[in-house]
Amino acid sequence: MKHRICLFLALAASLFVDQAQAQKASWIWYPGDFDIYMSNVMQNRRTERGSFFPVFWKMDSHYVLVDFHKEFTLTEPEEVKLYVEGTYNVKIDGQAISGFPKTIKIPAGKHKLSLKVYNQAQVPAIFVQGKTVISDETWLSTFEDKEWIDASGKTSDKSGTTFVSAGSWHFTDPLIAPSAFKLPVTPHAATKIEKANQGTLSDFGKETFGFIKVHGLRGKGRMSIYYGESREEALSTDKCETLDYLDIDLSAKKDSIMPLSKAFRYVNAQYEGSVAADSISMLYEYAPVTEKGSFKSSDKELNKIYDVAKYTFHLNTREFFIDGIKRDRWVWSGDAYQSYLMNYYSFFDAETVKRTLWAQRGKDPVTAHINTIMDYSFYWFLGIYDYYKFTGDQKFVQDIYPRMQSLMTYIDGRKNKDGLLEWMPGDWIFIDWADKLSKEGEVSFEQLLYARSLETMSLCAKLANDADGAAKYDQQATTLKKKLFDLYWNANKQALVHSRIAGKPTDNVTRYANMFGIFFDYFTADQKLGVKKNVLLNDNVAKITTPYMRFYELEALCAMGEQSYVLKEMKSYWGGMLKLGATSFWEEYNPDKKGTEHLAMYGRPFGKSLCHAWGASPIYLLGRYYLGVQPTKPGYKTYAIEPNLGGLAWMEGKVPTPNGDIEVYCSNKEIKVKSAVGMGTLKLKSKSKPNAPGAVVTEIGKGVYEIKIEKGKEYKIKYTYGPHGL
Amino acid sequence: MKHRICLFLALAASLFVDQAQAQKASWIWYPGDFDIYMSNVMQNRRTERGSFFPVFWKMDSHYVLVDFHKEFTLTEPEEVKLYVEGTYNVKIDGQAISGFPKTIKIPAGKHKLSLKVYNQAQVPAIFVQGKTVISDETWLSTFEDKEWIDASGKTSDKSGTTFVSAGSWHFTDPLIAPSAFKLPVTPHAATKIEKANQGTLSDFGKETFGFIKVHGLRGKGRMSIYYGESREEALSTDKCETLDYLDIDLSAKKDSIMPLSKAFRYVNAQYEGSVAADSISMLYEYAPVTEKGSFKSSDKELNKIYDVAKYTFHLNTREFFIDGIKRDRWVWSGDAYQSYLMNYYSFFDAETVKRTLWAQRGKDPVTAHINTIMDYSFYWFLGIYDYYKFTGDQKFVQDIYPRMQSLMTYIDGRKNKDGLLEWMPGDWIFIDWADKLSKEGEVSFEQLLYARSLETMSLCAKLANDADGAAKYDQQATTLKKKLFDLYWNANKQALVHSRIAGKPTDNVTRYANMFGIFFDYFTADQKLGVKKNVLLNDNVAKITTPYMRFYELEALCAMGEQSYVLKEMKSYWGGMLKLGATSFWEEYNPDKKGTEHLAMYGRPFGKSLCHAWGASPIYLLGRYYLGVQPTKPGYKTYAIEPNLGGLAWMEGKVPTPNGDIEVYCSNKEIKVKSAVGMGTLKLKSKSKPNAPGAVVTEIGKGVYEIKIEKGKEYKIKYTYGPHGL
Repeated sequence: MKHRICLFLALAASLFVDQAQAQKASWIWYPGDFDIYMSNVMQNRRTERGSFFPVFWKMDSHYVLVDFHKEFTLTEPEEVKLYVEGTYNVKIDGQAISGFPKTIKIPAGKHKLSLKVYNQAQVPAIFVQGKTVISDETWLSTFEDKEWIDASGKTSDKSGTTFVSAGSWHFTDPLIAPSAFKLPVTPHAATKIEKANQGTLSDFGKETFGFIKVHGLRGKGRMSIYYGESREEALSTDKCETLDYLDIDLSAKKDSIMPLSKAFRYVNAQYEGSVAADSISMLYEYAPVTEKGSFKSSDKELNKIYDVAKYTFHLNTREFFIDGIKRDRWVWSGDAYQSYLMNYYSFFDAETVKRTLWAQRGKDPVTAHINTIMDYSFYWFLGIYDYYKFTGDQKFVQDIYPRMQSLMTYIDGRKNKDGLLEWMPGDWIFIDWADKLSKEGEVSFEQLLYARSLETMSLCAKLANDADGAAKYDQQATTLKKKLFDLYWNANKQALVHSRIAGKPTDNVTRYANMFGIFFDYFTADQKLGVKKNVLLNDNVAKITTPYMRFYELEALCAMGEQSYVLKEMKSYWGGMLKLGATSFWEEYNPDKKGTEHLAMYGRPFGKSLCHAWGASPIYLLGRYYLGVQPTKPGYKTYAIEPNLGGLAWMEGKVPTPNGDIEVYCSNKEIKVKSAVGMGTLKLKSKSKPNAPGAVVTEIGKGVYEIKIEKGKEYKIKYTYGPHGL
Repeated sequence: MKHRICLFLALAASLFVDQAQAQKASWIWYPGDFDIYMSNVMQNRRTERGSFFPVFWKMDSHYVLVDFHKEFTLTEPEEVKLYVEGTYNVKIDGQAISGFPKTIKIPAGKHKLSLKVYNQAQVPAIFVQGKTVISDETWLSTFEDKEWIDASGKTSDKSGTTFVSAGSWHFTDPLIAPSAFKLPVTPHAATKIEKANQGTLSDFGKETFGFIKVHGLRGKGRMSIYYGESREEALSTDKCETLDYLDIDLSAKKDSIMPLSKAFRYVNAQYEGSVAADSISMLYEYAPVTEKGSFKSSDKELNKIYDVAKYTFHLNTREFFIDGIKRDRWVWSGDAYQSYLMNYYSFFDAETVKRTLWAQRGKDPVTAHINTIMDYSFYWFLGIYDYYKFTGDQKFVQDIYPRMQSLMTYIDGRKNKDGLLEWMPGDWIFIDWADKLSKEGEVSFEQLLYARSLETMSLCAKLANDADGAAKYDQQATTLKKKLFDLYWNANKQALVHSRIAGKPTDNVTRYANMFGIFFDYFTADQKLGVKKNVLLNDNVAKITTPYMRFYELEALCAMGEQSYVLKEMKSYWGGMLKLGATSFWEEYNPDKKGTEHLAMYGRPFGKSLCHAWGASPIYLLGRYYLGVQPTKPGYKTYAIEPNLGGLAWMEGKVPTPNGDIEVYCSNKEIKVKSAVGMGTLKLKSKSKPNAPGAVVTEIGKGVYEIKIEKGKEYKIKYTYGPHGL
């Protein structure tokens, strides 16, 4: 009986789902607007020792007045419910209905339903729910409908309005309006509590994020809460970065939750006057993403690095991909660009990528680089390039293409007489946190990112059906790439030099342009080898100390097959943080530092973020260059699998795609592959022809074999591991 | 004793004022932002039969994150109170103070006080009140401070931030935040109440505006309120333009005020179910402007026209200069342009001009013409030209110049291959409400306004210290003016033709370009005479039926000395409306129409506005061309008085200026002048040399005399009226 009941329940659930899908309405708005609005909400949560600490670039606003419409053809009259955030009107075929109707009846036949909404404080948004008439991204929206009438009452028939398809985050509950959106929370207790001065120090066991809840608060006076990513920070009441002061006058016990969620491992609660509390706990706040990607290997330390990286990344994945959870909590483009790549190998949450890209870009006019940083404007373009590559989502490219154009117009307008970019008032040339890094003159790294961004523009112009734009940007990219090598390639040094100053190339070599040139595939084979030897593996070239640029350095080495070297580096660098007790990865790590020196940055003893998204790059490196999976056509229509053990005895894991996972197991005897999507090409080296039952094995070079991977099939391939790895 | 007490009170009051002035703080914000915010609030109050009816162009938003700062040098420490709309931080010399302090102490010496405010729903605004540290327009503000720090904690020293002086509306009460701004109201009773169906019809005696208050409302059911500018409209429950429905369930009596103010003379209250009320009254809502200008003459009908015009204009002067009080209640640029001119001869309220100009322009990017209308973009430029002429306020020109540039860039980008403007998708070419008015091809009127706007750009570029811009715009204006005459001047017709179609001038002559050409002074003396005879006084050229274009037609005739003709026209046209019972002047008046035909427009029986700002132009014509006063240098540093009785036996009146009034009395025997400002030049014709005690009389032509008018002196001049008037 039990089995039959389960079956019945499953059937009922599936019926329910079918019906729900037939009516799957969602809240909609002008595309990008809720993203911009919500990023304002989120980025304005930063505080520094109790002071509000907002961003220093332009914050944009949603359009306050938006018109939505769609045409429907109904076979029978339909009752339609309307939910709206804002003051609104409703029109059927252009005829307004009096007041603010909550239910309307649309007659059978072809009809146009329009809602026009004004809202200054929140994003104008609608939720329309009928049997077939529902709100979704197929509705059209505009911020200027230009529907004027002449003296006779005739509506203009040539208004030239631009309508764009509506935006949504798939909010499907009509009773929860978009502005009520909040990340979920779940209660966690401290793992250890000790007395500290006039209060207690609570240890939550590892880096975490959420709202502190004070239980049984009472008395009169002040309660102070000092947050610490380290024990030292929480105990340093005068130097910890974040805190809460509560002035209390309570005769009866009351539970109190702090208004802002914060990052911490340790919480130091101090009481003055007669104030006391029973205990404190936390409400862990998290993004409800699914951990689709995975990685496990024969190396336990590496597995720990992967797990801590994924936890670090999950903490920094919030409404948007942010930089770090303690301090900035802002949407930085350079940081987010890396998060996108990590995301494709972990959550594959396309929505968070899109909303972060919208939020960074904001509205026109462009008055500064993204986050004011020249390089960060370019990472934004690169993020779109990759987004399309991994998801194949052409609609998003079309939606955002006009804002790509206006940002590129801004950048093109800042070229100097030689067609290169150099510092102008208002620009921050960041590159990396590194001592004595020159930003003078025309830095090669910026020109290289510029070229790649122009290539992205050309690609996206094609996707947005702008043939003229595609040709223009392609021409610009070609010219700039040629110039890059003409001006910066130093044949003696076998490297791109760092900059040109006063029209002359310097002989300063740094890693930045050279490592990007590798995985952008800008070098000839000879140049690549030269760069590897003379730059990447040359200890005389200034070392990189941030996980931010380690990401690209290690990627460049992986792209050249140096997985064994990179594995050692990962174990040394990220393993080094773990050995120092890290429970999440840091903003910066310099093995030469000692003790509490590791906590300091920006001239402040606890200024450093100990949970920074860019610290989580092993997620990407292991999926992309060890499991070796990547799309070769947009959205994994076709993809490559080139496993590389890099010295591991075995590894296994999943790489998510838009339509399911690709599973890979690899040891030095056997490779197992199972894929839910597309058409894969497994490439491997073997001393003898691999034994792959049910598959066609093609030798494409000496000892190099290719096997086509069809979706839904399982492959178990025996092979003989060669002296140079896979 | 009484006298001495008064003196003492006066002294005390004056002391109080001095002290208050020493501390005269006001709420400040990013310039233009409150204007844009408040115009969104106001323009979204339009309803049509209970439906929300917003504008069809882009509504902009304030900057949601704004930084304010000022440096102060204090001789002693000062306690400073802070009032802020929004989430904020406070810094002294760059050091943030924890939390949201309401009072701070600034030490003696030179210090920089900064506040950074975030507010999505309202305009970020601050009010700072110390003894000498106060908020006013000398503070600097920015929406992107670009104050990044490097890894060592050093703040960027080359951020290139653009700071602009703060905006204000002179809100001086710290406890009334800007978002609480409301126009004042005062109670008025109906003058007549009669039974009508299941309720009452209340007549308020004349066109008015405000909130209906229902006294002693009770019962269960619906109360319906139908508003009418005419009795017919209020009684037409199914066709009246505005209404309120109240669904009521009240056991005890309650007074109720309608949420939206409306225009009406008649109010038809109808009750269903058990609903009843004791009475209704209104709260008259008005702009608290001062009626500085005045005009009175020997002609009683003309005096009535002037008074009704001024009442019409006052009703349409609200938070901004709007088009009409019943229907649109929007800020239309072409309508507002005329209001500016009327304002200079009545309230001289510079603030309302500035805020209307800010509101119309909104924010960048420009995505359409102002109000989507090509001509309306040009009136906006002309409005700034006149504003500077009448007020001499260079600061405002400098503040708004960047937005003038971006609008002109938008317009320049829409020129066709011949450098002319013609219809493009999204453009509304309005010109006037007139039957069969061609908008095809390149309309001469638009090119003429374009040329004048380029001249305005050149002037304002100079005022904003943009020499390159001044030269560029000057060159453009010259080229376009030449083209205008080369292409459109028809020597046979002695007129500018209406348009060019497919590259060929038409032979269609309309009044528009020709009458503007007169008072823009674009014609030679011969051309002027030709235009006057062949266009202005030619009944075969299509007549103008809107007060909107009557304004310019009559202005052109006055500019050519046709005051006698214009006086008759005014009496016939505006007098015609009065004879039909008008208590305010209309959107359109065609003497050929009969009865309720006068109420209809836009295909609706009560579509016409019976209280339209553009109906009030006699205010301007009488001050500018009869009293004959106008500035000859910006802000009335110098000015001309050229009275013209136009057939009146006498007239007298005041013309306001930024610094006091100019009073003129004129009969055909005597002219009296008294001025509080500048240096005036009175010009008059007299058969013999005028007798002007205490003044120097210079004969500048045969029978034409000039007398210099110094401020503060009274002049009584006897003269002998000539056969051709003054």
